[in-house]
Amino acid sequence: MEAINETTVAVLPSQSKPIRCIVKLGGAAITCKNELENINEDSLELVASHLRQAMNIGSCSEKVVSLDWSKRPGISEVSCNVDDFKDQFTEDPRSFVVVHGAGSFGHFQASKSGVHKGGLNQPLVKAGFVATRISVTTLNLEIVRALAREGIPSIGMSPFPCGWSTRHRNIASADLSAVAKAVDCGFVPVLHGDAVLDELQGCTILSGDVIIRHLAASMKPEFVVFLTDVFGVYDRPPAEPNAVLLKEIAVCEDGSWSVVQPALENMNKQVEITVAAHDTTGGMVTKISEAAMIAKLGIDVYIVKAATSHALRALSGEVRGTIPDDWLGTVIRFARFSFVVDALNPELHFQCLIMSS
Amino acid sequence: MEAINETTVAVLPSQSKPIRCIVKLGGAAITCKNELENINEDSLELVASHLRQAMNIGSCSEKVVSLDWSKRPGISEVSCNVDDFKDQFTEDPRSFVVVHGAGSFGHFQASKSGVHKGGLNQPLVKAGFVATRISVTTLNLEIVRALAREGIPSIGMSPFPCGWSTRHRNIASADLSAVAKAVDCGFVPVLHGDAVLDELQGCTILSGDVIIRHLAASMKPEFVVFLTDVFGVYDRPPAEPNAVLLKEIAVCEDGSWSVVQPALENMNKQVEITVAAHDTTGGMVTKISEAAMIAKLGIDVYIVKAATSHALRALSGEVRGTIPDDWLGTVIRFARFSFVVDALNPELHFQCLIMSS
Repeated sequence: MEAINETTVAVLPSQSKPIRCIVKLGGAAITCKNELENINEDSLELVASHLRQAMNIGSCSEKVVSLDWSKRPGISEVSCNVDDFKDQFTEDPRSFVVVHGAGSFGHFQASKSGVHKGGLNQPLVKAGFVATRISVTTLNLEIVRALAREGIPSIGMSPFPCGWSTRHRNIASADLSAVAKAVDCGFVPVLHGDAVLDELQGCTILSGDVIIRHLAASMKPEFVVFLTDVFGVYDRPPAEPNAVLLKEIAVCEDGSWSVVQPALENMNKQVEITVAAHDTTGGMVTKISEAAMIAKLGIDVYIVKAATSHALRALSGEVRGTIPDDWLGTVIRFARFSFVVDALNPELHFQCLIMSS
Repeated sequence: MEAINETTVAVLPSQSKPIRCIVKLGGAAITCKNELENINEDSLELVASHLRQAMNIGSCSEKVVSLDWSKRPGISEVSCNVDDFKDQFTEDPRSFVVVHGAGSFGHFQASKSGVHKGGLNQPLVKAGFVATRISVTTLNLEIVRALAREGIPSIGMSPFPCGWSTRHRNIASADLSAVAKAVDCGFVPVLHGDAVLDELQGCTILSGDVIIRHLAASMKPEFVVFLTDVFGVYDRPPAEPNAVLLKEIAVCEDGSWSVVQPALENMNKQVEITVAAHDTTGGMVTKISEAAMIAKLGIDVYIVKAATSHALRALSGEVRGTIPDDWLGTVIRFARFSFVVDALNPELHFQCLIMSS
């Protein structure tokens, strides 16, 4: 198992508002992953609607009032009606922070130039750094706009210009005060995986999953939700016929994991995790590692399929505590009292899932 | 004359590379100012080409190699040829920082909601804050892409998420370390006028001109260029038949100004400056006030028409020192020894231009 270093946790000088939830919009869930720079508009629209409902925005009025007053290609000019805003934000919305992956944005540029491998003094890497950032910030703007069209007061926050940097791919610096200030003012910060400077190798790709972990460690949300393109974590690639969805995973202090639900038949079978070849930031392996690190902070992590009723329930906090039978997804929790539980309930830890990366 | 407060100058912890030039791309010069959210593509393309030449990028090869590898509407998919980058950035390019205005982006959203007047707790203002930022960041991304297509390693940097805030419209905080780091790595930061938090009134619009002054005070560039839609500063609205282009203006320590070139006929005539009604950030009045503040730092400011040979000459530093007769534009300089000069050359200060705002 890869050693996971602790991140440098930034000080939050002025945060006063507690964070309800940090959400990861997986790149695969909001883009058409095999088509260069194509957004999955239907999925993104549903995700935005679920976020609005989970944040409790505009609950007084039936009407969704768009905060995107800009022109869109192929759509007649947008106007805004001043009277529409009377009922908006009358109830204080729940504080959310959104982080998204890149999906089919940025990966072509990053892998063509090798930005993730560093070497910013090489012309091709420097060019790729710029090209990657153009691609991922294009996606960021589209996501900010999609959320704003649902009435969510979204604010795009790009890690590189906001001072995030890494040291051998782990976060070296990140001033979160701007994120905290935006939350305090009732905005929803929208961060993303980005090309950043790295103290050792010059530059790298900072994945959205690593950002999530860092934000969670600093901002202590009530819970974290990963919206993906599958129902959750399986015991083998989900396309295989007998793949079993793991509904609850417990993470121990030493980094080992146990499946709590369901009871698996083959006790010693190692869980296989697929990593798409073009995914420069590690795919599901990184996601689960980062989720485990968050769970170890005592923050429950829900991995759930985007744009489904299961996602809405997770985002709304409905599945906290006992997991409903009809909910599809994976909860990753910290097994705070694992030894006591082991003694009382020996079958709990029967399946130890060691990461193979 | 409105009192101009000194800005809080941020510390630059790690800047080592001297800045050649800070450039303001005026909103009116790069957008079609009276058409909502329309970029003046021809002008922007020429401006980007002039910047590339002034920065000395790709001087070894005739071929301009694009750093924008993303799809563009109506244009077939972009690919990149790895071999094209061998000759790029072989000579260290001159360090530039670019700041742009909003033009026909952002103004509609800001004025409809009154973001510049503050009151972020009002739903309409909060909505307008989000809508304004969507509009100006859309323009920022397009400018970053236009520069990248000319081979300029441009990096978009939005003031609000980067922690810029104001106190009664003057800059209260601005962490410039990310800007300095980007410059040190050979990137060209591209900032813009933005909606930001204001300590006294909740929020406001921070204009690109105020950003320029702050950057200049902190980063001490060799010179500053304002690219506008007119040839420079005139003694009256430039559309009037007898308008005279003021080629050199001296700024005194006390804030008073004198026209050095040309000698004007009517000695007591006050200079009229037009301010477009929809310009929430002050138009030419703000521009000249800010330019005067920069000049007082000992940094020459050139106000020149974008996308002309005069702009290219100013950006390249060709008109520094004695102004060539065939150059059209306005230089604003600090009259360091104004009293001595006055005694020797009494006609120098005959025209004192007091701002009427």
